[in-house]
Amino acid sequence: MERKFDEELRDLNEKLLRMATMVEESISLAIKALKERNEDMVQEVLRREEDINLIEIDIDELCMKLLALRQPMASDLRFITSAMKIAAELERMGDQAVNIAERTEELLKYPLLKPLIDIPRMATIAQEMVRDSINAFINHDEKLARAVCERDDEVDNLNDQIFRELLTYMIEDPGTIKRAVNLILIGRHLERIADHATNIGEDVIYLVKGKTIKHHIEEKRGELKG
Amino acid sequence: MERKFDEELRDLNEKLLRMATMVEESISLAIKALKERNEDMVQEVLRREEDINLIEIDIDELCMKLLALRQPMASDLRFITSAMKIAAELERMGDQAVNIAERTEELLKYPLLKPLIDIPRMATIAQEMVRDSINAFINHDEKLARAVCERDDEVDNLNDQIFRELLTYMIEDPGTIKRAVNLILIGRHLERIADHATNIGEDVIYLVKGKTIKHHIEEKRGELKG
Repeated sequence: MERKFDEELRDLNEKLLRMATMVEESISLAIKALKERNEDMVQEVLRREEDINLIEIDIDELCMKLLALRQPMASDLRFITSAMKIAAELERMGDQAVNIAERTEELLKYPLLKPLIDIPRMATIAQEMVRDSINAFINHDEKLARAVCERDDEVDNLNDQIFRELLTYMIEDPGTIKRAVNLILIGRHLERIADHATNIGEDVIYLVKGKTIKHHIEEKRGELKG
Repeated sequence: MERKFDEELRDLNEKLLRMATMVEESISLAIKALKERNEDMVQEVLRREEDINLIEIDIDELCMKLLALRQPMASDLRFITSAMKIAAELERMGDQAVNIAERTEELLKYPLLKPLIDIPRMATIAQEMVRDSINAFINHDEKLARAVCERDDEVDNLNDQIFRELLTYMIEDPGTIKRAVNLILIGRHLERIADHATNIGEDVIYLVKGKTIKHHIEEKRGELKG
């Protein structure tokens, strides 16, 4: 029985890793479609959404089964509830990849507005955050998880910069408006991906430390006391 | 022991209801601030974010305690894991209310672009969806939960309509760009709120029926079989 449970936990771990890989690939593909103006890649991202949705349900059902049948305690319990949360974050990242692909599809109807520099840079950071958050989960690496959370501001700042620059484009030349709005939305989708990676980072810290750092609660509770 | 557990479940139920009320109020206040161009209300929404974050953590910790100490089975287990998910959705709605307030703060720097009609309409539907999804949860009302899920398209269509109309404004008069972009983003935030309400609707159906309808899995599995 103990061994069977260990196997089930390993199975859960592997499923989460597979899901993470699928989501990473969708994000990469969506950004590549944008950079290379490739319609086939757009369609490929849209096609893959379904698989990501199905594996999330699969993980969720496995977690419920483990909670019901194994009645896990302490660290196993935290692992299983974290797995449910991480799967939900990954699924939302997959949705954002689809959003980026849909915006790209719009952009392909028009000539390139300007060479893309900041958006690919933002995408690279967001993708690194996704990868690091998953690695932090696999290796129970609290330090890496905290590093992910700290990079969130970097992405937010880049997004603000992109937003302001594109506003300037639109104001100077109304012919750029449709394209600029779509690029602004892509910036926001990337920002959301970074947010989800940050949420996973927080889940990992909780998993390792057994306490929550969500919404900087450590400081807040300190403030209330102090 | 059995009675103590019932009390704890009631406590969890009450906390979720309190959180839902807080989130509904934040959304209403953000929309009221937009409609009435009221800076004080904007600040009030920003102030309330912290309370929503804290009650989510509170609910999460209570759920983990119940899972660990009570080792619940079947419907209690589903209730507790649903509560964790619903709290996470509510917290995200609270974030969207903050986003709307921040966009409103920007809009208050400029004169009114045009009388707001579609955005308040969209807000009303989104708020009804939030309220209905919570009522569906309280009353284990599967029918109401399904009705919430079905309204999601209505909000998406309104959002598309708002997006297209505002694009026209920008193209005709570049002086409207900043305001129009902020209104487009508010439309998207409302769309996200409706998405979160839909997610709660799905959680309620799962809670009541003990099966998932996420991502229309019933049809999908039917297709695979058929």
